[in-house]
Amino acid sequence: MEPLPIYDLSRLCIHTITTRPLNVFEAIKKYSEMGISGITLWRDSYSGHKLSEVRKQIEECGLTPVSVCRGGFFPSVSEAVRKDSVTVNIAAIHEAAELGAPMVVLVCGADPRQSLETSRDQIRQGIEAILPEAEKSGIKLAIEPLHPVYADTRSAINTMKQANNMADFFDSPLVGVAVDVYHVWWDPELQMEIGRCGERNRLFAFHICDWKSPTEDILNDRGIMGEGCIDIPRIRGWMESAGFDGHHEVEIFSDRYWKSDQDEYLKNIVSAYRHHV
Amino acid sequence: MEPLPIYDLSRLCIHTITTRPLNVFEAIKKYSEMGISGITLWRDSYSGHKLSEVRKQIEECGLTPVSVCRGGFFPSVSEAVRKDSVTVNIAAIHEAAELGAPMVVLVCGADPRQSLETSRDQIRQGIEAILPEAEKSGIKLAIEPLHPVYADTRSAINTMKQANNMADFFDSPLVGVAVDVYHVWWDPELQMEIGRCGERNRLFAFHICDWKSPTEDILNDRGIMGEGCIDIPRIRGWMESAGFDGHHEVEIFSDRYWKSDQDEYLKNIVSAYRHHV
Repeated sequence: MEPLPIYDLSRLCIHTITTRPLNVFEAIKKYSEMGISGITLWRDSYSGHKLSEVRKQIEECGLTPVSVCRGGFFPSVSEAVRKDSVTVNIAAIHEAAELGAPMVVLVCGADPRQSLETSRDQIRQGIEAILPEAEKSGIKLAIEPLHPVYADTRSAINTMKQANNMADFFDSPLVGVAVDVYHVWWDPELQMEIGRCGERNRLFAFHICDWKSPTEDILNDRGIMGEGCIDIPRIRGWMESAGFDGHHEVEIFSDRYWKSDQDEYLKNIVSAYRHHV
Repeated sequence: MEPLPIYDLSRLCIHTITTRPLNVFEAIKKYSEMGISGITLWRDSYSGHKLSEVRKQIEECGLTPVSVCRGGFFPSVSEAVRKDSVTVNIAAIHEAAELGAPMVVLVCGADPRQSLETSRDQIRQGIEAILPEAEKSGIKLAIEPLHPVYADTRSAINTMKQANNMADFFDSPLVGVAVDVYHVWWDPELQMEIGRCGERNRLFAFHICDWKSPTEDILNDRGIMGEGCIDIPRIRGWMESAGFDGHHEVEIFSDRYWKSDQDEYLKNIVSAYRHHV
């Protein structure tokens, strides 16, 4: 069933990385001026700033802090690196709490020097190690399955089913799944696994952008919604049928758009959001 | 269980595209001189040559023609293009018969202007349309699942499970699956689906190369076996446990290697085959 059309921007959220050339205060101001409702803060965007000031400006502008991006990257053949990743993830949880964001998104990580199974074990161990800290402040952890093209270095969790299985293991109200259309649009079991995810109340986030044909750079050539082949309204319909009522978060990595005028770009994003989501 | 080490080249096959700068007669001669056993012929490699002469030289050099690459590319929003693809695929079947190759590999295709489900329907219709021609000459059709990174334009069949399901639909001894490690190494259900494929006697082909980290070009930066993160011996073990006893076909697309000395490159391939397959 097609979902209802989008009438307003009350669920639109932008990831700061989408407008990477803007500093965090510029981003907050511009998003707010355009009527955008939410902001997801990438850690590099607020690095070097006082979190209390970032939070204050977000509140003053009436934006909702949706999540902190990103934790994860747990696996490594090096035990020292794995320990360090736990420290970094705990820091991200504390930052989310300070910023008033309810969630940290986990790009789980992978190490091409070891098997995917070993990387998955280390992801489980990593989440296990940080979950008590998340529980202290009530911060949610969203496992984001990544497209299999990133299985070598970015994530050994590559399908919604794997993310769901990992969340099953923890069976915690604080461990859920982030659905990014770019990563999962091709998955023949997507609708079913979104449904399963919804039944367990763990659809934590919905990230949107588009897959361009051709894609010129596999990391930084994402498209604005409508520019590519992903049927976003259909996936949004599956999300809503499964009970998701959170933000629609625009997360675009694009060398091309980062080089462009960011005001114009934000206008295009808002227009695309109204027509292609 | 780890498979037995490789002692000889009796199952080694090279795809002509691997050594694209060589013309088909040079390829046949060089492969044979190096003790390689099989050759898979890409259609562009023999285009413009008499197939009877190509076949004669293959026979004189003692090589086994393993397959013709590639048929497929059935889906399109244009009915005329779909009809044309059937004609082209039937031509490929005839060429395989003339060359003495028992099989045509199908890169099934996709069209980003329509849904993956529609593309899959058109793939099924395409195979349906060419199967009678394949039956006339006893040519096998191998459905090759492609990595999800190619789901927009190259194949709407992206997992072994989907390929198996498609083969189930036809339930013909002439319709099977080609397993290419590059496309399926990340799949959490790979071992299970290879097993299922073997039970139905439809493991038709095994293509090898490696996934480099980083991969600089998603199409033409494949690695030689051992250069990347794919555990090829493990997947070969799964293939053998499932009853596969065919050739190990080296299929590498690489701008870097195409620019290199092809004799040296073939030596490296043979050495890598002995140590990393």
